Amino acid sequence: MQLTRFSDLALRLLLYLAGHDKPMETTATVRAVSELFNVPYTHMVKVTHQLGRKGWLTTTKGKGGGLRLSRPPEEVRIGEILRTTEPANDVIDCFTQACPLRSACTLKEALDRAYEAFFRELDQYTLADVAAMPALQKLIQISL
Amino acid sequence: MQLTRFSDLALRLLLYLAGHDKPMETTATVRAVSELFNVPYTHMVKVTHQLGRKGWLTTTKGKGGGLRLSRPPEEVRIGEILRTTEPANDVIDCFTQACPLRSACTLKEALDRAYEAFFRELDQYTLADVAAMPALQKLIQISL
Repeated sequence: MQLTRFSDLALRLLLYLAGHDKPMETTATVRAVSELFNVPYTHMVKVTHQLGRKGWLTTTKGKGGGLRLSRPPEEVRIGEILRTTEPANDVIDCFTQACPLRSACTLKEALDRAYEAFFRELDQYTLADVAAMPALQKLIQISL
Repeated sequence: MQLTRFSDLALRLLLYLAGHDKPMETTATVRAVSELFNVPYTHMVKVTHQLGRKGWLTTTKGKGGGLRLSRPPEEVRIGEILRTTEPANDVIDCFTQACPLRSACTLKEALDRAYEAFFRELDQYTLADVAAMPALQKLIQISL
């Protein structure tokens, strides 16, 4: 069971911004972030566009512009981010192969509760909590 | 975030066996189960083979033979099944794109705890609990 590639890149990008000394004053370019995480530039462009639409990032153009967090990282919970980046009710695919139980399936109910437990656990961590790791500080130093 | 196709088919098959009146005396053929769930026969062969190796099923050959649950469904927890069918530590892929944080990542720790919370929630349900649904009973009636 794996997060989507979109969630993966979204978390890396938000962590990178949150890990700076003054995260709300930090801007980054898509190019720098994609190079830092060894991710194709075009993928990162799509991710930043979607994160902007979902309200996690603001983007400004011109000199000194770039990507910036919309909210202080102490106020953003990891579960909250993933609820917006992961597809809803997606833990099992009842439809592609037309499962005959799909209309009233107790297994699906149990899986949906477990999916919610996954997010609840991640609500215990803010973006600031998770960004407080030496490996990220080192990475940021390299990028400056 | 979606279960692997293997887990999906494994759960359907185990549910089908668990849903019978006398589940420990029930045998099924791979052919019947694959038709019932609209799943290619060759996929279901692989799933039964793996479930046999993991100890969830026994298979007997010859007349009256087939697939049979190894343990009573009241004693088998859904979380327990999925811990053996899902890849371990797989909720995010730190390696394919060589994430520079992979050696000491607090995000990965949080995700691993959330993954465990997912399984813990599913430990509250036995195979028998989940198999007690009218839609499954109807499906079994059709298949007999």
